[in-house]
Amino acid sequence: MAGKLPVSPLAPARFPDLPAIAGLELASVAAGVKYQGRDDVMLARLCPGSAVAGVFTRSATRSAPVLDCQEKLGGETSAGAAILVNSGNSNAFTGGAGRASVEAICKAVAGACDLPEARVFTASTGVIGERLPDDRITAKIGDLVAGLSPLAIEQSARAICTTDTFAKGASTVIETAEGPVTIMGFAKGSGMIAPDMATMLVYIFTDATISQDTLQAVLSAGVDSTFNAITVDSDTSTSDSLMVAATQQGPAVDSAVFAEALNTVMLDLAHQVVRDGEGATKFVEVQVTGADSDADAKRVAMSIANSPLVKTAIAGEDPNWGRIVMAVGKSGAKADRDLLSIRFGEALVAENGWASPQYSEEIGAAHMKGDEITIKVDMGIGNGAFTAWTCDLTHGYISINADYRS
Amino acid sequence: MAGKLPVSPLAPARFPDLPAIAGLELASVAAGVKYQGRDDVMLARLCPGSAVAGVFTRSATRSAPVLDCQEKLGGETSAGAAILVNSGNSNAFTGGAGRASVEAICKAVAGACDLPEARVFTASTGVIGERLPDDRITAKIGDLVAGLSPLAIEQSARAICTTDTFAKGASTVIETAEGPVTIMGFAKGSGMIAPDMATMLVYIFTDATISQDTLQAVLSAGVDSTFNAITVDSDTSTSDSLMVAATQQGPAVDSAVFAEALNTVMLDLAHQVVRDGEGATKFVEVQVTGADSDADAKRVAMSIANSPLVKTAIAGEDPNWGRIVMAVGKSGAKADRDLLSIRFGEALVAENGWASPQYSEEIGAAHMKGDEITIKVDMGIGNGAFTAWTCDLTHGYISINADYRS
Repeated sequence: MAGKLPVSPLAPARFPDLPAIAGLELASVAAGVKYQGRDDVMLARLCPGSAVAGVFTRSATRSAPVLDCQEKLGGETSAGAAILVNSGNSNAFTGGAGRASVEAICKAVAGACDLPEARVFTASTGVIGERLPDDRITAKIGDLVAGLSPLAIEQSARAICTTDTFAKGASTVIETAEGPVTIMGFAKGSGMIAPDMATMLVYIFTDATISQDTLQAVLSAGVDSTFNAITVDSDTSTSDSLMVAATQQGPAVDSAVFAEALNTVMLDLAHQVVRDGEGATKFVEVQVTGADSDADAKRVAMSIANSPLVKTAIAGEDPNWGRIVMAVGKSGAKADRDLLSIRFGEALVAENGWASPQYSEEIGAAHMKGDEITIKVDMGIGNGAFTAWTCDLTHGYISINADYRS
Repeated sequence: MAGKLPVSPLAPARFPDLPAIAGLELASVAAGVKYQGRDDVMLARLCPGSAVAGVFTRSATRSAPVLDCQEKLGGETSAGAAILVNSGNSNAFTGGAGRASVEAICKAVAGACDLPEARVFTASTGVIGERLPDDRITAKIGDLVAGLSPLAIEQSARAICTTDTFAKGASTVIETAEGPVTIMGFAKGSGMIAPDMATMLVYIFTDATISQDTLQAVLSAGVDSTFNAITVDSDTSTSDSLMVAATQQGPAVDSAVFAEALNTVMLDLAHQVVRDGEGATKFVEVQVTGADSDADAKRVAMSIANSPLVKTAIAGEDPNWGRIVMAVGKSGAKADRDLLSIRFGEALVAENGWASPQYSEEIGAAHMKGDEITIKVDMGIGNGAFTAWTCDLTHGYISINADYRS
């Protein structure tokens, strides 16, 4: 499946040049978990003292690797850490065998990297409900360790892809009095879901000197306005994982400054996931302001961003603002029809409970022709605000998920 | 738009023979609200004493007719009542002009039928945000009243259709010691939504002698397991309206017996709406049992029934039960992976946190070939149960909502 799909028209021109992170080595290998002829396992080794933080899917049917990672978060950092990720099989809904596979992989990585098993984290992405052939992975641990390099970034980003049409990377640098702090990361995901596969996986690395507790707090605080603000199709994976590791090899940095820089990288990667949304031809930003609360603003933004009716209208370049009214109305958020205003980009579309006198269908149609669509909704009630990002819903989505058989 | 779409493959062979209801007369007319060359307004006149009950969309941006109907419910019954419905324009998000249009129509109908305006109910279905040309409707009230007949049922059912590919009708008879009580109704809807149009409208009539308060109570109790248990695409209309009128011309009937019969008609019509879901090729029943509560069971059933991933898998005849696990997990309901079981029809697919040993892909694939799909999920936790109905998500849905421009 992977590789057969045309590259998203919203993809960046190429994978970015990403900087090495002191204390981080990466490797990838072809283990043949499911795919043939491509790398499908990546290993990240982190130096002693590295802090590791993570956030994971809230699904009640989360995968074995997710459950294992959640148990291990917050552990002793002195020995270092490792992260191993495979594509092709999600090891989700695999009963006791799933847990055993995670343990086998962690044991093998711990042995080869001289780490406690409690500091080996794993993730798996691919088909749900099939036993993970962990022996194919453990057989390649030696090759992975031998191949570790600070520069093997792009190949690692590619190894964890499933139906992604492009690998996703981003980085930033914070200048401090003691020198630069670098943040670099990569992600996979083509929506929350993909043909017979699932999952968004994100790995971000930094050389910052920052405590594990602070790293976790900064990550947890940043995820709501970045990865939790995107949707392709409202379906939530059993395996979504976002991990951030700090090797402590660079300067210390103010946590607020670090948080801002980390959020920049997270938002960049989150947007790239939307740009690779299955069948996407339009990148859509939904800005909601003036709601009764931030929570209400998120309800409205996600109701619009998840509405099949809104998303098909955008696919058809139809400035169908009545569908936005519908999505506001069904959201469950406090709303007053006559205080609501809607804009496409800067153009005022509707206000005072009706179409704006200055709006014409031509204005809306012109905005819809672009491949970056902005929908602004002001509820006119309070100060709650939230911005969400999504893509359109096209024949491509149906083709990927219905026409191709597993 | 209407009439151009091929009839749903899940449509009944023909519109049923529906019985006349003593005390009810119907008429339809071509008013040219938007469509040309077809009837687009229907009028129902109910004899003095008729009880009228209704349930309406909970949307925060409900249409002017919905707001007007909600204000009028529960009023004095002695004079009789009337219901006027137009297709082609929903009179939603039309500001103060929307309210004025409703008042103009109600006043005209009240005058022509010698009724207080408080007993004239209206509904509108079609494009959102355009002024309703109410003068085209009021100009036809005389023709409508002149054409009233107990037999004009099918033509009225057709007049309120928008992108429906077939008109939907159902009836039942309750035998009582004092003679039969008849319940008859019709519906329009092709999902909650349609191209540039919205709405499910349902009108059910009975000759039963039943108080307005009891009729409202029975209707409100029955809607959760019937019309509120269906979904085509998770989008909720600004105009959904379900009204039941009892002319009091037949016998009294035990309210529990009446409720059961009414629910039968409502469920039949609700299923027909799903069968006319935009682009539908499969009718899907999702039975959830063993949940912590009925509310949790509904969360799980609707999470499955609304999942684009599940619905595209069904469209592709792919027995992709991993996507059902995903939908259970994201529902927010209490779940234990290892207690969950999943069946396609009678075939056990997954249990004990993994695929069942007796399941094979061939078994699932065989079930998926049919045009009636049953998904059974037992949560294994409690006694909560809920059944939902939906259809698959196909290229037809995208074509209807994205390819055709308004």
